[in-house]
Amino acid sequence: MLKIGIIGAGRIGKVHTESVKHLVKNAELKAIADPFMTKETEEWAKNIGVENVYSDYSKIINDKDIDIVLICSSTDTHSKISLEAIKAGKHVFCEKPIDHDVNKIKEVMDAINKHKVKYQVGFQRRFDRNFRAAKEAVLAGKIGDLNILKITSRDPGPPPVSYIKVSGGIFLDMTIHDFDMVRYMSGAEVTEVYAIGGVMVDPAIKEAGDIDTAVISLKLSNGALAVIDNCRRASYGYDQRVEAFGSKGQVAVGNVPESTTVLSDGSGVTAEKPQFFFLQRYMDAYANEVTSFINAVVNNTDTEVNVIDGLKPVIIGLAAKKSLALGRPVKIEEIEKEYKL
Amino acid sequence: MLKIGIIGAGRIGKVHTESVKHLVKNAELKAIADPFMTKETEEWAKNIGVENVYSDYSKIINDKDIDIVLICSSTDTHSKISLEAIKAGKHVFCEKPIDHDVNKIKEVMDAINKHKVKYQVGFQRRFDRNFRAAKEAVLAGKIGDLNILKITSRDPGPPPVSYIKVSGGIFLDMTIHDFDMVRYMSGAEVTEVYAIGGVMVDPAIKEAGDIDTAVISLKLSNGALAVIDNCRRASYGYDQRVEAFGSKGQVAVGNVPESTTVLSDGSGVTAEKPQFFFLQRYMDAYANEVTSFINAVVNNTDTEVNVIDGLKPVIIGLAAKKSLALGRPVKIEEIEKEYKL
Amino acid sequence: MLKIGIIGAGRIGKVHTESVKHLVKNAELKAIADPFMTKETEEWAKNIGVENVYSDYSKIINDKDIDIVLICSSTDTHSKISLEAIKAGKHVFCEKPIDHDVNKIKEVMDAINKHKVKYQVGFQRRFDRNFRAAKEAVLAGKIGDLNILKITSRDPGPPPVSYIKVSGGIFLDMTIHDFDMVRYMSGAEVTEVYAIGGVMVDPAIKEAGDIDTAVISLKLSNGALAVIDNCRRASYGYDQRVEAFGSKGQVAVGNVPESTTVLSDGSGVTAEKPQFFFLQRYMDAYANEVTSFINAVVNNTDTEVNVIDGLKPVIIGLAAKKSLALGRPVKIEEIEKEYKL
Amino acid sequence: MLKIGIIGAGRIGKVHTESVKHLVKNAELKAIADPFMTKETEEWAKNIGVENVYSDYSKIINDKDIDIVLICSSTDTHSKISLEAIKAGKHVFCEKPIDHDVNKIKEVMDAINKHKVKYQVGFQRRFDRNFRAAKEAVLAGKIGDLNILKITSRDPGPPPVSYIKVSGGIFLDMTIHDFDMVRYMSGAEVTEVYAIGGVMVDPAIKEAGDIDTAVISLKLSNGALAVIDNCRRASYGYDQRVEAFGSKGQVAVGNVPESTTVLSDGSGVTAEKPQFFFLQRYMDAYANEVTSFINAVVNNTDTEVNVIDGLKPVIIGLAAKKSLALGRPVKIEEIEKEYKL
Repeated sequence: MLKIGIIGAGRIGKVHTESVKHLVKNAELKAIADPFMTKETEEWAKNIGVENVYSDYSKIINDKDIDIVLICSSTDTHSKISLEAIKAGKHVFCEKPIDHDVNKIKEVMDAINKHKVKYQVGFQRRFDRNFRAAKEAVLAGKIGDLNILKITSRDPGPPPVSYIKVSGGIFLDMTIHDFDMVRYMSGAEVTEVYAIGGVMVDPAIKEAGDIDTAVISLKLSNGALAVIDNCRRASYGYDQRVEAFGSKGQVAVGNVPESTTVLSDGSGVTAEKPQFFFLQRYMDAYANEVTSFINAVVNNTDTEVNVIDGLKPVIIGLAAKKSLALGRPVKIEEIEKEYKL
Repeated sequence: MLKIGIIGAGRIGKVHTESVKHLVKNAELKAIADPFMTKETEEWAKNIGVENVYSDYSKIINDKDIDIVLICSSTDTHSKISLEAIKAGKHVFCEKPIDHDVNKIKEVMDAINKHKVKYQVGFQRRFDRNFRAAKEAVLAGKIGDLNILKITSRDPGPPPVSYIKVSGGIFLDMTIHDFDMVRYMSGAEVTEVYAIGGVMVDPAIKEAGDIDTAVISLKLSNGALAVIDNCRRASYGYDQRVEAFGSKGQVAVGNVPESTTVLSDGSGVTAEKPQFFFLQRYMDAYANEVTSFINAVVNNTDTEVNVIDGLKPVIIGLAAKKSLALGRPVKIEEIEKEYKL
Repeated sequence: MLKIGIIGAGRIGKVHTESVKHLVKNAELKAIADPFMTKETEEWAKNIGVENVYSDYSKIINDKDIDIVLICSSTDTHSKISLEAIKAGKHVFCEKPIDHDVNKIKEVMDAINKHKVKYQVGFQRRFDRNFRAAKEAVLAGKIGDLNILKITSRDPGPPPVSYIKVSGGIFLDMTIHDFDMVRYMSGAEVTEVYAIGGVMVDPAIKEAGDIDTAVISLKLSNGALAVIDNCRRASYGYDQRVEAFGSKGQVAVGNVPESTTVLSDGSGVTAEKPQFFFLQRYMDAYANEVTSFINAVVNNTDTEVNVIDGLKPVIIGLAAKKSLALGRPVKIEEIEKEYKL
Repeated sequence: MLKIGIIGAGRIGKVHTESVKHLVKNAELKAIADPFMTKETEEWAKNIGVENVYSDYSKIINDKDIDIVLICSSTDTHSKISLEAIKAGKHVFCEKPIDHDVNKIKEVMDAINKHKVKYQVGFQRRFDRNFRAAKEAVLAGKIGDLNILKITSRDPGPPPVSYIKVSGGIFLDMTIHDFDMVRYMSGAEVTEVYAIGGVMVDPAIKEAGDIDTAVISLKLSNGALAVIDNCRRASYGYDQRVEAFGSKGQVAVGNVPESTTVLSDGSGVTAEKPQFFFLQRYMDAYANEVTSFINAVVNNTDTEVNVIDGLKPVIIGLAAKKSLALGRPVKIEEIEKEYKL
């Protein structure tokens, strides 16, 4: 029975806590830590049956009994805590992104290689049954060779501007999931990026130095083309779709509606909106990804989303950022050279 | 080049006139007659290029030059004009129903047999591309053996009560199309009928001695079950659906929307309503059925909807009427015996 | 903290065990009992964290510590165990049907009245988010007055014939859920039933004295009409749909697909099949119904599906059985009089 | 009664001939001309009731009786015949594109201004009821401000390579319709274009100096973003979709299926493919656009798709071509300056 410690008890930390307690087998949750541990959170943790609740996460790092650390803290601490946990010999599941700074990700890579631990990055969308079904259709040859990959990813509403300011920008915060989906669905690498975008949701986002709406076109190493469109606000809810078009057919993943109820009346034939909130949409995926990680630890196999899979979307995001700034397409190797990769 | 005369220049007469003029080949429209021929209609006919416009339809019956008569007059004149036209050696396309009185239909049958003319009844739904595609799927064995056939048929709104009074009742006026669809889709005969119904749309329909909402369950000669539901008013438009469920699968025909446009917003994901009006929904089917009839005349083949196909739904309708009145299932042979069929 | 005992560790017993352990709050599972308790099941129960595992269910009935009993045993034991548990002062959640014998259900009713315990029947479909959304739309007046209610309920495949023999027949075993849905969706009582049916799936079902395919039409106390169609086998999976058509519109509940993936290729535009298995389709509903029951116990409110709701569908089922046998519509009051209700 | 002459009796010429004969009012077809007039075509024209059939189109230009000329000849003759017809005082409906050479389009513009005739370009997609419904939704404010416009346009299969060689390339031949749709749906002008693409369908297309698959991202004058994806081959048929996403919602236009039939069986829930062929998909649109043109002539109003609407997509196409060649975004004003526009 593996022992798990969770660092970070915010929204996503709570999600992983619930799923480890209720849905994950072969492992038990020993402790949870959060520097800003509140009374409320502590009570919640006790209620759910977590024995040890700390505000000092190093108690988890230093607990010899703990095999696995789930890092759910704020992005700016991901690489630092990853390094500490890895050095302590823990297997690490880290929420995305590992870091906005490629050099820090490189440090994490080196530490993993040295300490031979398992490392997985939290791209949960790969574990969603809908996207997985599409991926399996592609692998089964149902679309033939991939020609065009289209990804739509729109949030129901923007996060607070305070969050946007430290988010690394839309490409590293939001599109990063889509860059991962491009790699997942295509089985290929991105070679060039061109991004256009603007501020259409909230002028405060502009003041924060970011954009809220974007279209990114990408060239892939297998010759296929891809395009992502993003917006921080969709009036109808969380819009998460993929179309993979190939020589033999197209596989498309649609949104998951709140229910299958359809109302026909004088104003039309109205189906329900997509599930509104990402936690609702991806609850199963969060449980699946941690289950997959624990299986990799138990069976000593590769994790399904390794540190390279964590690195690549950051590089693509940096290329998109540069493309937007310079108004020209940017090759991935331009960014890789900057970081001597 | 066959010559056609159309009797009846009301709504459906105009539809057939347009389609004969524009869409039908191998035949030309020579004359149109209507006892209530108005200035307006006359002008419309001239404009569309019809040479001869009469108020006396016997001019068509007696015109040796005319090969084909399309009977689009009021229901109470269908069998009488059919007989006159058949006796004059014309091939006859007659709008449904041939008559509410089975004995009069029998006279028409006898006349057809004697005069060896082609006769087709206007069950246009068989010629709709959607229902036809479903029928072809059934014939191709895609659902295996038919188990359950479900037909929904609801009008956008009720006809005037004055019309309902002479309509023969909902089963002979509206459900008659569905009874035909049961025979078309199943390739079997109805053996027993049970009808329940009520007045839910307009109390005036009750005063007129009719109902406006019904559910009719049917046993078929091949052992399959069928059910039809009808209503004289659907707030969302003309609702025309079929589901044929069998041992290997189900084929379903959905409504045709006004357009494929879908609006997603704060109130849901709204597709367009079904095409509202039967003329819009079945315009192609009206042209197809007349084309099919003319082909049968030209090639001397059987018509696709013959006089027996015109008779059977009337008998089923009479059984449904009796079932509703007596509150018990009624066997088709009960009705057939009444008429010595 | 309420203590729960579960009697019956078959398929549905296991489902409730999992959901009580993982998803239900305010209550903890103390014991599980099954007369045919196997090594395997015992191990499964221990693994899941159930302390007490018995083969003698009376240990649960006699445990003063236990507040709530979930009866998941075979149908023929439901009323007997219900009576024992009620007399012991337990609140009882009982899987459907309470009994095939109305007199035994009456005994349960009397016991509930005498011992003032909460009692809920396992019609989980009321707790499915899709059907609930439809019900809420009806309550919100979105369809106006109900005119026609249509329910389709088809299983992916028939149960073993050995099961069918003791099932009470299709109407008491399978359609009973649909009879409950008629009452749930309409908010009205059934007044008359007419059933037609046949054996189309497996001749062995005929030998067992049952049918496997049926169409049941129903009159409701509010004047509306209803129709249910059932089949023990649908090649495309578990087909569970409802259409409620009214004066202002129609609300329809469609199936839940395995995923939202759609493949477009040379053979068409193919969406996924409905979720195949009832445990998959209704897993959330099973958790919701038990949560609702525990809330009723905690808050001392009425249960959402009480013993009357358990009785009525049995009576409707008996009426359907009689209708099929006699080939005529059967009034509900005919059955009620037989049992002096 | 206006008199019409049609120049070019190929596929699209035949379409317009049929629709003028059958569906268009206020105008009659007097003559049709084609330099390669075959026996077959001549017979077809006679059959359909066209009196005058020429191989020399100047007979139409010089016929004082003819008010309107429809130019359906090969692209390389469009501007030349336009000029001749305009100079002869005819109102001209010209198939797209007017010319690949902007200077020749400018000559046509000058001639129109001088001779005060009506001129319309054949962008029929604007007259399709589905796209029109979407446009109307946008105009009615249903999506708020446009943020992202996405257009998918894929052909069932590539034209012959001989055609591709003289087509002006994918952007001027195929994407030109999408460029027009960007302008139509957005009500804005394109300011910048970036195109990526490749040859994925047929290497012979590469040899012909063209590509067959492309993704084009565009900046619009109102700040919105747009993206078009094209492919010369879609295994599932003619794929023509639009999504207009805005601050208040999204309007999407889906494909029109061959029928509304859906088959559910062991392999899934299969709807029909999109209508396969552009003539099938846009037959009504071809009739609507000519009707609109004739109304403009009759009522002396502006045509719905004027010469500027014909020019702009050519310029955008040239920008896309340049972008693909140079591997960088190209501003529309770069192209406009080249042609002193």
